[in-house]
Order: sequence, then C-alpha cells, then structure tokens
Amino acid sequence: MISIGSIEAIGRRIVLALGALGLLTIAARAQTDPLPSWNDGAAKLAILAFVKETTTPGSPAFVPEPERIATFDQDGTLWVEKPMYSQVIYCLDRVPAVVREKPELANVEPFKTVLSGDREAMARLSMDDLEKILAATLTGMTVEEFRVEAARWLDSARDPRWKRPYTELTYQPMQEVLRYFRANGYKTYIATGGGQDFVRVYAERVYGIPREQVVGTAGDTRYGYDKDGKPILTKEPKLLLNNDKAGKPEGIHLMIGRRPVAAFGNSIGDREMLEYTMGGGGARLAMLVLHDDAAREYAYGPALGLPDSRVGTFSQALYDEAKKKAWTVISMKNDWKRIFAFD
Amino acid sequence: MISIGSIEAIGRRIVLALGALGLLTIAARAQTDPLPSWNDGAAKLAILAFVKETTTPGSPAFVPEPERIATFDQDGTLWVEKPMYSQVIYCLDRVPAVVREKPELANVEPFKTVLSGDREAMARLSMDDLEKILAATLTGMTVEEFRVEAARWLDSARDPRWKRPYTELTYQPMQEVLRYFRANGYKTYIATGGGQDFVRVYAERVYGIPREQVVGTAGDTRYGYDKDGKPILTKEPKLLLNNDKAGKPEGIHLMIGRRPVAAFGNSIGDREMLEYTMGGGGARLAMLVLHDDAAREYAYGPALGLPDSRVGTFSQALYDEAKKKAWTVISMKNDWKRIFAFD
Repeated sequence: MISIGSIEAIGRRIVLALGALGLLTIAARAQTDPLPSWNDGAAKLAILAFVKETTTPGSPAFVPEPERIATFDQDGTLWVEKPMYSQVIYCLDRVPAVVREKPELANVEPFKTVLSGDREAMARLSMDDLEKILAATLTGMTVEEFRVEAARWLDSARDPRWKRPYTELTYQPMQEVLRYFRANGYKTYIATGGGQDFVRVYAERVYGIPREQVVGTAGDTRYGYDKDGKPILTKEPKLLLNNDKAGKPEGIHLMIGRRPVAAFGNSIGDREMLEYTMGGGGARLAMLVLHDDAAREYAYGPALGLPDSRVGTFSQALYDEAKKKAWTVISMKNDWKRIFAFD
Repeated sequence: MISIGSIEAIGRRIVLALGALGLLTIAARAQTDPLPSWNDGAAKLAILAFVKETTTPGSPAFVPEPERIATFDQDGTLWVEKPMYSQVIYCLDRVPAVVREKPELANVEPFKTVLSGDREAMARLSMDDLEKILAATLTGMTVEEFRVEAARWLDSARDPRWKRPYTELTYQPMQEVLRYFRANGYKTYIATGGGQDFVRVYAERVYGIPREQVVGTAGDTRYGYDKDGKPILTKEPKLLLNNDKAGKPEGIHLMIGRRPVAAFGNSIGDREMLEYTMGGGGARLAMLVLHDDAAREYAYGPALGLPDSRVGTFSQALYDEAKKKAWTVISMKNDWKRIFAFD
C-alpha cells in the first residue's frame, strides 16, 4: 500500500503528463461548445452530428481512426481569397526582385506591366501572363530559399482592407472546425489549388496542419548540388500536380491514399473533391462556404448572381448541385457569429 | 480533499487511459533494450545515440518533434528483395488474369513468355518487357480494385525459399528500429522505388506505417465515374514520380516537404536520399543494410564483389562512399541476432 502523499505526487505527475499531451484541454473543451463562433443552425448541427456519429464506438457510422481523413480547401474556405489569392499577390510583389536579378525582363511583358504598379492593368493580365509571372517568381531557387522568401513576405505584407498580415485573415469558425476534428481523432489536410510549397510555409502556424498534410498544386524539383557540393532541391517550372477540380481527388490519392470522409470547399474547384468524398460508403460530410456577407467579408458567386463561367468562385450551378445532393451550404452571414479572431 | 478510494479509482482509470494510449508499453520498453534483435556494436550504438541526442530536451542536437522525420527504403532494407522484388512477382502472377480479359495478348511478347511459366526465360526479360507487364497489371483498374487484387495475392502468395507470405519476410531488427523511432516522436516513412499504391496495401499491417506515410513510385490516376455514376479514380499508365535515386529526395519533398534527419537504405537507389539527409544541419543518421549473410538470408553487392553496374544492389562504390562519409553500414551477419520474427 502506498501513502496518500505518494499517490498525490503521482497524481500531480500524471496531471502534468496529461497536460503535456493536450488531453486536459480536450477534456475541458468537450464540456463546452466546440464551435463557439457558429450560430445554432443546420450547418453547425451537421458538423456536430457527423463527428459524433463517426467517432462514437458502436455507432453504425463509426469510422476507425486511421480512416478519419478530413480535407479542407484553403482560399475562400479557410481564409480570404479576395480581392486576389494571396499567393498571386506574393508573386506580383516578387517581380521587382526578379527583375533586379534579370534586368533584361524590365521591358518585357508581363513584367513591364507589373513594374508599372498599375493595378488595373495588372487585373487584366491573361492566364498566360500570370503563368509567366508564377514561373519567374516560384521557381529557380532551392526549396529552402523559397521558404525564406515566402516567410519574409508573409511577415511584412498587409491586406489592403484589414491592414493585417494575410495569415490573420483566417476564418475563426473554420479554425474551430479544424481543432474539433483533430480533437476527435481526425487528420486534417489542406487540399488547395494553391502552391503546395507556399501553403506549407505557414500551414503549421496558421492552421495547426504540418507541411506533410498540405496537398496542393506542385511543381517538380530537381536534385543537385550547390557550389559547395551541398545537396539541394531546386524548384523547376514543370507542373507535377494541378490540384484543382478533378486534380483534387487525384492529388488526395497521391498524397494520402485514402478517400476522405469529410471535405470542405467553396468553389467549383472543390466540386470533384466533395463528390469523391461523398462517393464512399458510410457517413460522409460535404460542406461549401458561401460568401454572402459583404459587410463583414465579401459577397460573390451565387450570392451576387455572378455568371457560372467565373472560375474559382461558387457558381450558381454548384449551389444548385449542393442543394440537390444535400451537401451543406455554410452561409457566412447567417452561420458565423464572427468571421475573424480579431473581430 | 478527496478520499483515498476515489484517488485509487481515478488512478485505475488513468492507468487504463494511459494503457490505451500505449504509454505503459513505451515506459516498460524504455527500461529494457529497445533493440533486442541487435548485437552490441557500432550500428546499434549509432542508432541508440542518435535517437537519444535528438530527442533529449536541452541536448545540442535536439530536434523538435515536427522535424523528426525518418525515411526507410523498403526492398532489401525492411524486407527481402531476392530472388526478385515481390511486386514484380505480383505482376508476373497477374498476367494470366490479364490475358483472360484480353485473350489477344496470349501470343504477344512479353506476355507469351510469362504464360509459358519458364522462369529462366522470364529472368531474361528486358526492362522494356517488364514495363509492358507492369503497365498491363498495375493500371486500368480503380484504386480500390487494385487494393483488393493486391491484398488477395499477398494472402495467398508464398516465397519459394521460406514458404511464407512475403509480408512475413520483414527484418525483425528493422521492425524494432521503426518502433523505437516512433516511440521517440519520430514519424517513420517508407521511401521506396516500388509502387506507392502496392506498398500502401500492407504498410500499416506489416510496418505500422499508414498509407499516407508511404512515398513510392507513383503513376497518375484519372478521376471519372463508373457505370452507376459513382466517382472513381482509375490507375493510368503514366509515370508521375520515379522514386528512385535522385527521385527519392524529390519524392520526399513532394510528399513530406521536409529534409529527413535519418534515412535507411541498402542500394545505389538510396544513395541520394542518404546524401540529402546528411546534407541538413545538426545531428543526422544515414545507414545502409549490407546483405552479407548467405546462410540466414542472401549475400550480394560488395559482399560478393558484384560489378557496380548491377542496378538495385549495394555496389562497391556505394560501400566505399559510406565508409568515407561515415554512413553506418549494417552487417546483417554481424549486427543482427536474428533476421525474421519467425527465426
């Protein structure tokens, strides 16, 4: 028989150990609302019910832990995508540095237009022009050099509307969803049309998602050696994986090897990911964030009746499909109590 | 103040909870030898010292947990690769089923040779021939159909020497290394030149490595719909990632996004992975399994003085490089007490 004192000492050590494991936090949270930034409604209920039924042992919809994969689009789903994808702004901001290294580009389009600083002219750049800018600013350096550059930009760049770092423009309700899924044994993945290496720079800090759980559009790298003979990987202007539309389930298979049981998106680029997710057996969850809150964020897509041809937005056709297939549409205006942590 | 009885009850619940988390197992193991199938020697010491110095808080070589990535080649490093890669045997064994579906192949080479059952003729098949067989047997079906086929084969196929399922031919000392790394906060990855989807079928069961931690040679998939409109991914005969030689660090970057701190291999296909691993700062570990035990397994590579040109083996040049760069060579004969769990 051990003494009360030693039991208490063991108890304290166990409490410390459990605390270190984050279990106390989880236990404390379980007694309160895991989604405090959500208004009560169909969307919030759908999330709570899905997590409960897939993680309660004995439930007919129980999903074993290794199969608990939830994928999240990033731009427009986890953070603001207007007026322009942050990564595109990064690339435009990088152009002067690229031209300093290659002065011959100063009078060549589309670099000339970007250097002019004329935002309206930049907004009219074609996809071909944008691809030239992306290739010039995202490739040709080592993967480590790219991380340093992108991290430096993220530290200094500010969104024009909120005057805050882009990394603060993440939706608080979705942060709660990420944490709630993880607290229930789900592995959360980003599945973005954006650049895999770009999102990896901040995914851990902003979303609590490690680099290896970022599935994104990826270019090839080339193994080689720097001038001191140190082994390096150089980013190449060759597309390996276009992680958008049908490319999303393909990228998810390549990087994860499992069909997700839950998927979140906000645009026609996410349609196939949601469809693929729902195509598996058992309980499944597909949700689409609808940007219908011009006052607190932006309103676009079916909220504004924009034409379906507008790529990267939530088209009317997607909205109709979601309603028909019982995918849950999240209204930012009605379902979210607040949008940002700083609100 | 709570009573002793309630403290004891809490204690019992905590013990149960810790047991469920596997912590008791880890604690119990820490007091015993984590590598019981290893003879005392430089290789065993290198592993123990590396894990200790990279995971002890305050150690100058401490590696934060998110950075603890260890990559393991499979064929010849985690399991037997002779007389032929298991996946190649799988493909050869699948040929009759493929020909049943496409009878026109019966009289076309290389399928005709495979159908003849003449093992010597099969051993003389060219790389071109093998590629035709791989394409015919590994593509054209959905990713789920492939899993079912491969799992069925793994259940029934037997290695000719040990008369056991291939999945039992995993090296017990390496199983201990995998568990020891994981017990110390490392994420263990397979980085194989073999097919990513093939290894994923059994990696969890055989190595405790989930599908998403298998980096392998990967073909493209195509998103589409089956005849009932269900969304499917079909395996395509288009190579996306050749995860061998320089392709290994490239594949590791694509799938993980971090430079490993430890890497294990056994052949010239692993050279660049080890080099890339050692090229990072801080404590690093690179190890090569040398097959020098003809009695208990096989002896090949520098153990037998085979020419360097023999692809897929541990060449003399690699052996010399390992010695020069202080990569640790593991002698199966001298460093391993036993080879298999069934020994």
